[in-house]
Amino acid sequence: MELWFSEPHTKDVKISIRVKQQLYSGQSDYQKIDVYDTFEFGKILVLDGCIMLTEKDEFIYHEMITHVPMAINMQIRKVLVIGAGDGGTVNQLIKYKTIEKIDVVEIDRDVVKVSREFFDIAKSFDDERVTLYYEDGLRFVRNIINCYDLIIVDSTDPFGPGEGLFTKEFYGNCFNALTDDGILINQHESPFYTNDQLAMMRTHRRINSVFKKAFIYQAHIPTYPSGHWLFGYASKKRGVMPDMSWNMLGIKTRYYNLDLHRGAFAIPNYVKELLKEAKNE
Amino acid sequence: MELWFSEPHTKDVKISIRVKQQLYSGQSDYQKIDVYDTFEFGKILVLDGCIMLTEKDEFIYHEMITHVPMAINMQIRKVLVIGAGDGGTVNQLIKYKTIEKIDVVEIDRDVVKVSREFFDIAKSFDDERVTLYYEDGLRFVRNIINCYDLIIVDSTDPFGPGEGLFTKEFYGNCFNALTDDGILINQHESPFYTNDQLAMMRTHRRINSVFKKAFIYQAHIPTYPSGHWLFGYASKKRGVMPDMSWNMLGIKTRYYNLDLHRGAFAIPNYVKELLKEAKNE
Repeated sequence: MELWFSEPHTKDVKISIRVKQQLYSGQSDYQKIDVYDTFEFGKILVLDGCIMLTEKDEFIYHEMITHVPMAINMQIRKVLVIGAGDGGTVNQLIKYKTIEKIDVVEIDRDVVKVSREFFDIAKSFDDERVTLYYEDGLRFVRNIINCYDLIIVDSTDPFGPGEGLFTKEFYGNCFNALTDDGILINQHESPFYTNDQLAMMRTHRRINSVFKKAFIYQAHIPTYPSGHWLFGYASKKRGVMPDMSWNMLGIKTRYYNLDLHRGAFAIPNYVKELLKEAKNE
Repeated sequence: MELWFSEPHTKDVKISIRVKQQLYSGQSDYQKIDVYDTFEFGKILVLDGCIMLTEKDEFIYHEMITHVPMAINMQIRKVLVIGAGDGGTVNQLIKYKTIEKIDVVEIDRDVVKVSREFFDIAKSFDDERVTLYYEDGLRFVRNIINCYDLIIVDSTDPFGPGEGLFTKEFYGNCFNALTDDGILINQHESPFYTNDQLAMMRTHRRINSVFKKAFIYQAHIPTYPSGHWLFGYASKKRGVMPDMSWNMLGIKTRYYNLDLHRGAFAIPNYVKELLKEAKNE
Protein backbone atom coordinates (compact mmCIF):
# COMPACT_ATOMS: atom_id res chain seq x y z
CA MET A 1 0.00 0.00 0.00
CA GLU A 2 1.13 3.52 -0.72
CA LEU A 3 -0.43 6.58 0.85
CA TRP A 4 0.29 9.93 -0.80
CA PHE A 5 -0.61 13.46 0.29
CA SER A 6 -0.97 15.92 -2.58
CA GLU A 7 -1.15 19.70 -2.49
CA PRO A 8 -2.14 21.65 -5.60
CA HIS A 9 0.22 24.58 -6.18
CA THR A 10 -1.97 25.77 -9.02
CA LYS A 11 -4.83 23.94 -10.65
CA ASP A 12 -2.28 22.47 -13.06
CA VAL A 13 0.66 21.68 -10.75
CA LYS A 14 0.85 19.63 -7.61
CA ILE A 15 3.39 18.24 -5.19
CA SER A 16 2.90 14.77 -3.69
CA ILE A 17 4.53 13.39 -0.60
CA ARG A 18 4.49 9.77 0.52
CA VAL A 19 2.94 9.33 3.93
CA LYS A 20 3.82 6.80 6.64
CA GLN A 21 0.65 7.51 8.54
CA GLN A 22 -1.88 10.17 9.33
CA LEU A 23 -1.34 11.28 12.91
CA TYR A 24 -4.20 13.74 13.29
CA SER A 25 -7.16 15.07 11.38
CA GLY A 26 -9.71 17.50 12.72
CA GLN A 27 -11.88 20.46 11.87
CA SER A 28 -11.37 23.49 14.11
CA ASP A 29 -13.64 26.53 14.23
CA TYR A 30 -11.49 28.05 11.49
CA GLN A 31 -9.91 25.37 9.34
CA LYS A 32 -9.10 21.74 8.67
CA ILE A 33 -5.99 20.62 10.54
CA ASP A 34 -4.01 17.54 9.49
CA VAL A 35 -0.72 16.08 10.67
CA TYR A 36 1.06 13.41 8.67
CA ASP A 37 4.21 11.48 9.29
CA THR A 38 6.06 11.35 5.97
CA PHE A 39 9.10 9.50 4.64
CA GLU A 40 10.95 12.50 3.21
CA PHE A 41 9.97 15.40 5.44
CA GLY A 42 9.26 13.88 8.84
CA LYS A 43 6.07 15.20 10.39
CA ILE A 44 4.17 17.82 8.43
CA LEU A 45 1.40 20.21 9.50
CA VAL A 46 -1.31 20.88 6.92
CA LEU A 47 -3.99 23.58 7.24
CA ASP A 48 -6.91 23.53 4.80
CA GLY A 49 -4.85 21.29 2.52
CA CYS A 50 -1.76 23.55 2.43
CA ILE A 51 1.54 22.48 3.97
CA MET A 52 2.36 24.92 6.77
CA LEU A 53 5.56 23.30 7.89
CA THR A 54 7.60 20.14 7.67
CA GLU A 55 10.19 18.99 10.18
CA LYS A 56 12.78 18.83 7.40
CA ASP A 57 12.63 22.40 6.11
CA GLU A 58 10.80 24.50 8.72
CA PHE A 59 14.14 25.96 9.84
CA ILE A 60 14.47 27.88 6.58
CA TYR A 61 11.18 29.74 6.88
CA HIS A 62 11.44 30.33 10.61
CA GLU A 63 15.06 31.48 10.57
CA MET A 64 14.39 33.91 7.76
CA ILE A 65 11.27 35.42 9.31
CA THR A 66 13.08 36.11 12.62
CA HIS A 67 16.85 36.55 12.27
CA VAL A 68 16.61 39.07 9.45
CA PRO A 69 14.83 41.70 11.61
CA MET A 70 16.73 40.69 14.76
CA ALA A 71 20.07 41.30 13.01
CA ILE A 72 18.86 44.61 11.58
CA ASN A 73 17.99 45.97 15.00
CA MET A 74 19.75 44.29 17.87
CA GLN A 75 17.88 46.52 20.34
CA ILE A 76 14.56 44.74 19.82
CA ARG A 77 12.96 44.00 23.21
CA LYS A 78 9.21 43.58 22.67
CA VAL A 79 7.89 41.35 19.89
CA LEU A 80 4.39 40.66 18.65
CA VAL A 81 3.88 37.52 16.59
CA ILE A 82 0.59 37.11 14.72
CA GLY A 83 -0.36 33.64 13.54
CA ALA A 84 2.49 31.19 14.12
CA GLY A 85 0.46 28.82 16.26
CA ASP A 86 2.93 26.06 15.41
CA GLY A 87 5.64 27.65 17.55
CA GLY A 88 8.35 27.70 14.86
CA THR A 89 8.79 31.48 14.86
CA VAL A 90 8.84 31.71 18.64
CA ASN A 91 11.33 28.83 18.68
CA GLN A 92 13.83 31.07 16.89
CA LEU A 93 12.99 34.24 18.84
CA ILE A 94 13.69 32.67 22.23
CA LYS A 95 17.34 32.23 21.18
CA TYR A 96 17.73 35.97 21.88
CA LYS A 97 18.44 36.73 25.53
CA THR A 98 17.84 40.40 24.75
CA ILE A 99 14.15 39.88 23.96
CA GLU A 100 12.04 40.64 27.03
CA LYS A 101 8.52 39.92 25.84
CA ILE A 102 6.94 37.84 23.07
CA ASP A 103 3.19 38.18 22.58
CA VAL A 104 1.69 35.58 20.26
CA VAL A 105 -1.75 36.13 18.78
CA GLU A 106 -3.18 33.01 17.17
CA ILE A 107 -6.82 32.91 16.14
CA ASP A 108 -7.04 29.12 16.24
CA ARG A 109 -6.53 27.48 19.63
CA ASP A 110 -6.54 24.03 17.99
CA VAL A 111 -3.44 24.82 15.93
CA VAL A 112 -1.51 25.42 19.14
CA LYS A 113 -2.96 22.34 20.78
CA VAL A 114 -2.13 20.07 17.84
CA SER A 115 1.34 21.60 17.42
CA ARG A 116 2.11 21.08 21.11
CA GLU A 117 1.16 17.44 20.70
CA PHE A 118 3.18 16.69 17.57
CA PHE A 119 5.96 19.24 17.03
CA ASP A 120 8.99 19.93 19.23
CA ILE A 121 9.17 23.53 18.05
CA ALA A 122 5.92 24.24 19.92
CA LYS A 123 7.74 23.67 23.21
CA SER A 124 8.99 27.20 22.67
CA PHE A 125 5.61 28.44 23.94
CA ASP A 126 6.72 27.36 27.42
CA ASP A 127 9.36 30.08 27.52
CA GLU A 128 8.38 32.46 30.30
CA ARG A 129 8.62 35.53 28.06
CA VAL A 130 5.83 34.20 25.85
CA THR A 131 2.14 35.13 26.29
CA LEU A 132 -0.40 33.42 24.06
CA TYR A 133 -3.60 35.24 23.04
CA TYR A 134 -6.29 33.32 21.17
CA GLU A 135 -7.68 36.21 19.19
CA ASP A 136 -8.03 37.66 15.73
CA GLY A 137 -4.76 39.45 14.99
CA LEU A 138 -6.58 42.15 13.07
CA ARG A 139 -8.60 43.00 16.16
CA PHE A 140 -5.69 42.60 18.60
CA VAL A 141 -3.51 45.32 17.07
CA ARG A 142 -6.37 47.75 16.56
CA ASN A 143 -5.91 49.77 19.75
CA ILE A 144 -2.23 49.37 20.46
CA ILE A 145 -0.03 52.40 20.08
CA ASN A 146 3.77 52.64 20.03
CA CYS A 147 4.32 49.37 21.81
CA TYR A 148 6.29 46.74 19.85
CA ASP A 149 9.81 46.91 18.37
CA LEU A 150 8.97 44.08 16.00
CA ILE A 151 5.75 42.64 14.61
CA ILE A 152 6.00 39.36 12.72
CA VAL A 153 2.97 38.35 10.66
CA ASP A 154 3.39 34.63 10.23
CA SER A 155 0.06 34.08 8.57
CA THR A 156 -1.52 31.52 6.31
CA ASP A 157 -2.35 32.54 2.73
CA PRO A 158 -4.68 35.50 2.08
CA PHE A 159 -7.84 33.41 1.93
CA GLY A 160 -9.73 31.93 4.87
CA PRO A 161 -8.71 32.83 8.41
CA GLY A 162 -5.56 34.71 7.31
CA GLU A 163 -7.39 37.11 4.99
CA GLY A 164 -7.67 40.05 7.41
CA LEU A 165 -3.91 40.02 7.89
CA PHE A 166 -3.42 41.20 4.32
CA THR A 167 -5.59 44.33 4.48
CA LYS A 168 -4.51 47.94 4.42
CA GLU A 169 -6.36 48.52 7.68
CA PHE A 170 -4.24 45.84 9.34
CA TYR A 171 -0.95 47.28 8.09
CA GLY A 172 -2.03 50.73 9.29
CA ASN A 173 -2.74 49.32 12.74
CA CYS A 174 0.65 47.58 12.75
CA PHE A 175 2.24 50.92 11.90
CA ASN A 176 0.62 52.46 14.97
CA ALA A 177 1.43 49.50 17.20
CA LEU A 178 5.12 49.74 16.33
CA THR A 179 7.61 51.97 18.08
CA ASP A 180 9.16 54.77 16.08
CA ASP A 181 12.04 52.47 15.12
CA GLY A 182 9.87 49.37 14.76
CA ILE A 183 9.95 46.72 12.06
CA LEU A 184 7.09 44.80 10.43
CA ILE A 185 7.89 41.43 8.84
CA ASN A 186 5.30 39.37 7.01
CA GLN A 187 5.15 36.21 4.96
CA HIS A 188 4.70 37.63 1.49
CA GLU A 189 3.73 34.74 -0.79
CA SER A 190 5.70 33.76 -3.89
CA PRO A 191 6.45 35.62 -7.12
CA PHE A 192 6.14 32.62 -9.42
CA TYR A 193 2.65 31.23 -9.96
CA THR A 194 -0.01 33.72 -11.07
CA ASN A 195 -2.26 33.66 -8.01
CA ASP A 196 0.65 33.90 -5.56
CA GLN A 197 2.12 36.65 -7.71
CA LEU A 198 -1.10 38.68 -7.56
CA ALA A 199 -1.27 38.23 -3.77
CA MET A 200 2.34 39.37 -3.50
CA MET A 201 1.69 42.48 -5.60
CA ARG A 202 -1.45 43.41 -3.67
CA THR A 203 0.34 42.96 -0.36
CA HIS A 204 3.30 45.06 -1.43
CA ARG A 205 1.06 47.83 -2.69
CA ARG A 206 -0.79 48.00 0.62
CA ILE A 207 2.29 47.88 2.85
CA ASN A 208 4.00 50.41 0.65
CA SER A 209 1.13 52.86 1.04
CA VAL A 210 1.56 52.75 4.84
CA PHE A 211 5.32 52.42 5.45
CA LYS A 212 8.03 54.68 4.13
CA LYS A 213 10.42 51.78 3.77
CA ALA A 214 9.13 48.53 2.28
CA PHE A 215 11.39 45.84 0.88
CA ILE A 216 11.13 42.22 -0.12
CA TYR A 217 13.50 39.40 0.68
CA GLN A 218 13.51 35.78 -0.39
CA ALA A 219 14.40 32.27 0.67
CA HIS A 220 14.53 28.77 -0.78
CA ILE A 221 11.69 26.86 0.86
CA PRO A 222 11.28 23.53 -0.95
CA THR A 223 7.82 22.66 0.40
CA TYR A 224 6.13 25.98 -0.48
CA PRO A 225 4.77 26.51 -4.00
CA SER A 226 7.66 27.03 -6.47
CA GLY A 227 10.20 26.93 -3.63
CA HIS A 228 10.81 30.66 -4.09
CA TRP A 229 9.24 32.31 -1.09
CA LEU A 230 9.16 35.97 -0.11
CA PHE A 231 9.04 37.97 3.08
CA GLY A 232 8.12 41.62 3.46
CA TYR A 233 10.23 44.04 5.51
CA ALA A 234 8.68 47.39 6.42
CA SER A 235 9.75 50.13 8.79
CA LYS A 236 9.16 53.82 9.39
CA LYS A 237 12.79 54.73 8.96
CA ARG A 238 15.26 51.86 9.22
CA GLY A 239 16.99 50.22 6.22
CA VAL A 240 17.77 46.55 5.83
CA MET A 241 21.50 46.28 6.55
CA PRO A 242 22.33 43.84 9.34
CA ASP A 243 24.39 44.76 12.37
CA MET A 244 27.68 42.94 11.79
CA SER A 245 28.02 42.31 15.50
CA TRP A 246 25.10 39.86 15.25
CA ASN A 247 27.71 37.11 14.87
CA MET A 248 28.94 37.89 18.40
CA LEU A 249 25.66 36.59 19.79
CA GLY A 250 26.72 33.08 18.82
CA ILE A 251 23.23 32.11 17.70
CA LYS A 252 23.31 28.81 15.83
CA THR A 253 21.50 28.82 12.50
CA ARG A 254 21.31 26.26 9.71
CA TYR A 255 20.17 28.58 6.91
CA TYR A 256 20.68 32.21 7.96
CA ASN A 257 23.98 34.07 7.98
CA LEU A 258 24.94 37.71 7.47
CA ASP A 259 26.07 37.30 3.86
CA LEU A 260 22.88 35.49 3.04
CA HIS A 261 20.92 38.27 4.76
CA ARG A 262 22.21 40.78 2.23
CA GLY A 263 21.84 38.31 -0.62
CA ALA A 264 18.22 37.66 0.30
CA PHE A 265 17.31 41.26 -0.54
CA ALA A 266 18.85 40.92 -4.02
CA ILE A 267 15.76 39.86 -5.92
CA PRO A 268 15.41 38.86 -9.58
CA ASN A 269 14.53 41.44 -12.22
CA TYR A 270 11.12 39.96 -12.94
CA VAL A 271 10.17 40.25 -9.26
CA LYS A 272 11.41 43.84 -9.11
CA GLU A 273 9.27 44.65 -12.11
CA LEU A 274 6.18 43.10 -10.56
CA LEU A 275 6.72 45.15 -7.40
CA LYS A 276 7.19 48.34 -9.39
CA GLU A 277 4.02 47.58 -11.30
CA ALA A 278 2.19 46.97 -8.01
CA LYS A 279 3.25 50.36 -6.62
CA ASN A 280 2.16 52.21 -9.73
CA GLU A 281 -1.29 50.67 -9.88
CA MET B 1 -10.00 13.63 -19.26
CA GLU B 2 -6.93 14.79 -17.39
CA LEU B 3 -3.39 13.96 -18.45
CA TRP B 4 -0.66 14.48 -15.85
CA PHE B 5 3.11 14.17 -16.17
CA SER B 6 4.85 13.24 -12.91
CA GLU B 7 8.53 13.40 -12.02
CA PRO B 8 9.80 11.76 -8.86
CA HIS B 9 12.16 14.11 -6.98
CA THR B 10 12.95 11.35 -4.52
CA LYS B 11 11.22 8.01 -4.14
CA ASP B 12 8.87 9.73 -1.68
CA VAL B 13 8.24 13.11 -3.35
CA LYS B 14 6.98 13.94 -6.80
CA ILE B 15 5.84 16.92 -8.83
CA SER B 16 2.94 16.58 -11.26
CA ILE B 17 2.08 18.86 -14.14
CA ARG B 18 -1.12 18.83 -16.14
CA VAL B 19 -0.52 18.21 -19.82
CA LYS B 20 -2.45 19.57 -22.81
CA GLN B 21 -0.85 17.07 -25.15
CA GLN B 22 2.25 15.07 -25.80
CA LEU B 23 4.10 16.62 -28.71
CA TYR B 24 6.95 14.17 -29.09
CA SER B 25 8.19 10.91 -27.66
CA GLY B 26 11.23 9.02 -28.87
CA GLN B 27 14.17 6.93 -27.80
CA SER B 28 17.54 8.23 -28.99
CA ASP B 29 20.82 6.31 -28.83
CA TYR B 30 21.32 7.78 -25.36
CA GLN B 31 18.02 8.52 -23.68
CA LYS B 32 14.25 8.84 -23.84
CA ILE B 33 13.17 12.24 -25.13
CA ASP B 34 9.68 13.64 -24.50
CA VAL B 35 8.09 16.99 -25.22
CA TYR B 36 4.79 17.96 -23.61
CA ASP B 37 2.63 21.02 -23.97
CA THR B 38 1.45 21.90 -20.45
CA PHE B 39 -1.06 24.34 -18.97
CA GLU B 40 1.24 25.96 -16.42
CA PHE B 41 4.69 25.83 -17.98
CA GLY B 42 4.12 25.93 -21.73
CA LYS B 43 6.21 23.37 -23.58
CA ILE B 44 8.54 21.23 -21.50
CA LEU B 45 11.48 19.04 -22.52
CA VAL B 46 11.90 15.81 -20.58
CA LEU B 47 14.96 13.53 -20.78
CA ASP B 48 14.74 10.07 -19.22
CA GLY B 49 11.76 11.26 -17.20
CA CYS B 50 13.47 14.39 -15.79
CA ILE B 51 12.34 17.89 -16.72
CA MET B 52 15.22 19.60 -18.50
CA LEU B 53 13.48 22.85 -19.22
CA THR B 54 10.11 24.52 -19.37
CA GLU B 55 9.23 27.57 -21.42
CA LYS B 56 8.05 29.31 -18.25
CA ASP B 57 11.20 29.10 -16.13
CA GLU B 58 14.11 28.20 -18.45
CA PHE B 59 15.29 31.81 -18.34
CA ILE B 60 16.33 31.43 -14.71
CA TYR B 61 18.66 28.49 -15.27
CA HIS B 62 20.07 29.77 -18.54
CA GLU B 63 20.65 33.33 -17.36
CA MET B 64 22.41 32.12 -14.23
CA ILE B 65 24.67 29.65 -16.02
CA THR B 66 25.87 32.30 -18.50
CA HIS B 67 25.67 35.87 -17.18
CA VAL B 68 27.47 35.10 -13.94
CA PRO B 69 30.75 34.16 -15.67
CA MET B 70 30.25 36.74 -18.45
CA ALA B 71 29.95 39.52 -15.86
CA ILE B 72 32.96 38.25 -13.93
CA ASN B 73 35.20 38.42 -16.98
CA MET B 74 34.01 40.75 -19.70
CA GLN B 75 37.01 39.76 -21.86
CA ILE B 76 35.65 36.30 -22.61
CA ARG B 77 35.96 35.60 -26.35
CA LYS B 78 35.96 31.80 -26.83
CA VAL B 79 33.36 29.66 -25.15
CA LEU B 80 32.89 25.89 -24.99
CA VAL B 81 29.46 24.62 -24.00
CA ILE B 82 29.09 20.95 -23.14
CA GLY B 83 25.60 19.44 -23.18
CA ALA B 84 22.99 22.14 -23.71
CA GLY B 85 21.49 20.58 -26.81
CA ASP B 86 18.28 22.52 -26.15
CA GLY B 87 19.95 25.82 -27.09
CA GLY B 88 18.98 27.71 -23.93
CA THR B 89 22.54 28.42 -22.83
CA VAL B 90 23.65 29.49 -26.31
CA ASN B 91 20.53 31.67 -26.52
CA GLN B 92 21.92 33.77 -23.64
CA LEU B 93 25.53 33.73 -24.83
CA ILE B 94 24.74 35.17 -28.26
CA LYS B 95 23.56 38.36 -26.53
CA TYR B 96 27.26 39.22 -26.11
CA LYS B 97 28.74 40.92 -29.15
CA THR B 98 32.17 40.42 -27.59
CA ILE B 99 32.02 36.63 -27.86
CA GLU B 100 33.76 35.45 -31.03
CA LYS B 101 33.29 31.69 -30.93
CA ILE B 102 30.87 29.30 -29.28
CA ASP B 103 31.61 25.58 -29.60
CA VAL B 104 28.78 23.34 -28.47
CA VAL B 105 29.43 19.68 -27.77
CA GLU B 106 26.27 17.63 -27.41
CA ILE B 107 26.43 13.87 -27.33
CA ASP B 108 22.84 13.38 -28.48
CA ARG B 109 22.00 14.64 -31.96
CA ASP B 110 18.31 13.93 -31.34
CA VAL B 111 18.12 16.43 -28.46
CA VAL B 112 19.18 19.18 -30.85
CA LYS B 113 16.81 17.97 -33.54
CA VAL B 114 13.82 17.83 -31.20
CA SER B 115 14.69 21.18 -29.58
CA ARG B 116 14.95 22.84 -32.98
CA GLU B 117 11.51 21.54 -33.79
CA PHE B 118 9.75 22.61 -30.59
CA PHE B 119 11.68 25.34 -28.76
CA ASP B 120 12.42 28.88 -29.91
CA ILE B 121 15.59 29.02 -27.82
CA ALA B 122 17.17 26.43 -30.15
CA LYS B 123 17.15 29.00 -32.95
CA SER B 124 20.24 30.35 -31.22
CA PHE B 125 22.21 27.53 -32.87
CA ASP B 126 21.84 29.42 -36.16
CA ASP B 127 24.12 32.20 -34.90
CA GLU B 128 27.19 32.18 -37.11
CA ARG B 129 29.58 32.05 -34.16
CA VAL B 130 28.18 28.68 -33.09
CA THR B 131 29.69 25.33 -34.12
CA LEU B 132 27.89 22.16 -33.08
CA TYR B 133 29.85 18.96 -32.41
CA TYR B 134 27.95 15.74 -31.80
CA GLU B 135 30.46 14.09 -29.52
CA ASP B 136 31.07 12.95 -25.99
CA GLY B 137 32.16 16.05 -24.06
CA LEU B 138 34.56 14.00 -21.97
CA ARG B 139 36.40 12.93 -25.10
CA PHE B 140 36.17 16.34 -26.81
CA VAL B 141 38.09 18.24 -24.14
CA ARG B 142 40.74 15.54 -23.69
CA ASN B 143 43.36 17.00 -26.04
CA ILE B 144 42.61 20.69 -25.93
CA ILE B 145 45.14 22.95 -24.27
CA ASN B 146 44.82 26.59 -23.27
CA CYS B 147 42.00 27.34 -25.67
CA TYR B 148 38.75 28.51 -24.05
CA ASP B 149 38.07 31.51 -21.80
CA LEU B 150 34.91 29.87 -20.52
CA ILE B 151 33.65 26.29 -20.36
CA ILE B 152 30.01 25.77 -19.41
CA VAL B 153 28.98 22.25 -18.47
CA ASP B 154 25.25 22.26 -18.95
CA SER B 155 24.80 18.57 -18.32
CA THR B 156 22.03 16.25 -17.25
CA ASP B 157 22.29 14.58 -13.83
CA PRO B 158 25.31 12.40 -13.01
CA PHE B 159 23.70 9.16 -14.16
CA GLY B 160 23.25 7.99 -17.74
CA PRO B 161 24.80 10.00 -20.59
CA GLY B 162 25.91 12.87 -18.30
CA GLU B 163 27.93 10.70 -15.95
CA GLY B 164 31.36 11.27 -17.50
CA LEU B 165 30.92 15.03 -17.06
CA PHE B 166 31.13 14.64 -13.29
CA THR B 167 34.49 12.84 -13.13
CA LYS B 168 37.80 14.15 -11.85
CA GLU B 169 39.38 13.28 -15.19
CA PHE B 170 36.90 15.53 -16.96
CA TYR B 171 37.52 18.47 -14.62
CA GLY B 172 41.26 18.02 -15.09
CA ASN B 173 40.82 18.16 -18.85
CA CYS B 174 38.68 21.28 -18.52
CA PHE B 175 41.47 22.85 -16.48
CA ASN B 176 43.90 22.21 -19.33
CA ALA B 177 41.46 23.34 -22.00
CA LEU B 178 40.96 26.69 -20.24
CA THR B 179 43.16 29.71 -20.72
CA ASP B 180 45.17 30.90 -17.75
CA ASP B 181 42.32 33.24 -16.77
CA GLY B 182 39.58 30.80 -17.77
CA ILE B 183 36.37 29.96 -15.93
CA LEU B 184 34.55 26.65 -15.58
CA ILE B 185 30.82 26.72 -14.79
CA ASN B 186 28.78 23.60 -14.24
CA GLN B 187 25.28 22.68 -13.18
CA HIS B 188 25.90 21.45 -9.67
CA GLU B 189 22.71 19.69 -8.53
CA SER B 190 20.76 20.70 -5.41
CA PRO B 191 21.69 20.70 -1.73
CA PHE B 192 18.31 19.56 -0.44
CA TYR B 193 17.33 15.96 -1.12
CA THR B 194 19.83 13.31 -0.05
CA ASN B 195 20.82 11.93 -3.47
CA ASP B 196 21.21 15.39 -5.01
CA GLN B 197 23.15 16.45 -1.93
CA LEU B 198 25.59 13.56 -2.29
CA ALA B 199 26.08 14.35 -5.99
CA MET B 200 26.72 17.98 -5.08
CA MET B 201 29.31 17.04 -2.47
CA ARG B 202 31.10 14.60 -4.75
CA THR B 203 31.19 17.16 -7.56
CA HIS B 204 32.54 19.89 -5.30
CA ARG B 205 35.24 17.60 -3.93
CA ARG B 206 36.44 16.71 -7.41
CA ILE B 207 36.41 20.26 -8.80
CA ASN B 208 38.08 21.53 -5.68
CA SER B 209 40.94 19.07 -6.08
CA VAL B 210 41.67 20.46 -9.56
CA PHE B 211 40.97 24.20 -9.32
CA LYS B 212 42.46 26.66 -6.86
CA LYS B 213 39.23 28.63 -6.74
CA ALA B 214 35.94 26.74 -6.49
CA PHE B 215 32.70 28.35 -5.36
CA ILE B 216 29.01 27.55 -5.44
CA TYR B 217 26.17 29.84 -6.38
CA GLN B 218 22.43 29.27 -6.33
CA ALA B 219 19.17 30.14 -8.03
CA HIS B 220 15.45 29.61 -7.56
CA ILE B 221 14.40 27.16 -10.27
CA PRO B 222 10.83 26.04 -9.57
CA THR B 223 10.80 23.00 -11.86
CA TYR B 224 14.01 21.40 -10.56
CA PRO B 225 13.90 19.22 -7.45
CA SER B 226 13.41 21.38 -4.31
CA GLY B 227 13.62 24.56 -6.41
CA HIS B 228 17.00 25.31 -4.84
CA TRP B 229 19.53 24.72 -7.59
CA LEU B 230 23.29 25.17 -7.56
CA PHE B 231 25.99 26.06 -10.04
CA GLY B 232 29.71 25.55 -9.65
CA TYR B 233 32.23 28.29 -10.42
CA ALA B 234 35.88 27.30 -10.77
CA SER B 235 38.92 29.16 -12.00
CA LYS B 236 42.69 29.06 -11.75
CA LYS B 237 42.96 32.51 -10.25
CA ARG B 238 39.92 34.72 -10.66
CA GLY B 239 37.40 35.48 -7.88
CA VAL B 240 33.66 35.84 -8.30
CA MET B 241 33.04 39.59 -8.17
CA PRO B 242 31.23 40.94 -11.22
CA ASP B 243 32.54 43.79 -13.33
CA MET B 244 30.19 46.66 -12.49
CA SER B 245 30.42 47.92 -16.05
CA TRP B 246 28.41 44.86 -17.15
CA ASN B 247 25.31 47.07 -16.89
CA MET B 248 26.71 49.22 -19.70
CA LEU B 249 26.24 46.33 -22.12
CA GLY B 250 22.49 46.83 -21.88
CA ILE B 251 21.78 43.10 -21.92
CA LYS B 252 18.16 42.43 -21.04
CA THR B 253 17.64 39.81 -18.34
CA ARG B 254 14.55 38.71 -16.45
CA TYR B 255 16.28 37.04 -13.49
CA TYR B 256 19.94 38.10 -13.39
CA ASN B 257 21.27 41.41 -12.14
CA LEU B 258 24.52 42.48 -10.48
CA ASP B 259 23.12 42.59 -6.94
CA LEU B 260 21.63 39.17 -7.40
CA HIS B 261 24.99 37.95 -8.74
CA ARG B 262 26.63 38.73 -5.41
CA GLY B 263 23.64 37.43 -3.48
CA ALA B 264 23.73 34.13 -5.37
CA PHE B 265 27.13 33.31 -3.85
CA ALA B 266 25.77 33.84 -0.31
CA ILE B 267 24.75 30.29 0.45
CA PRO B 268 22.97 28.91 3.53
CA ASN B 269 24.94 27.57 6.48
CA TYR B 270 23.82 24.00 5.96
CA VAL B 271 25.10 24.07 2.37
CA LYS B 272 28.42 25.57 3.48
CA GLU B 273 28.80 22.79 6.00
CA LEU B 274 28.11 20.10 3.40
CA LEU B 275 30.74 21.61 1.10
CA LYS B 276 33.29 21.78 3.92
CA GLU B 277 32.55 18.18 4.75
CA ALA B 278 32.99 17.24 1.08
CA LYS B 279 36.41 18.89 0.92
CA ASN B 280 37.62 17.16 4.07
CA GLU B 281 36.61 13.69 2.99
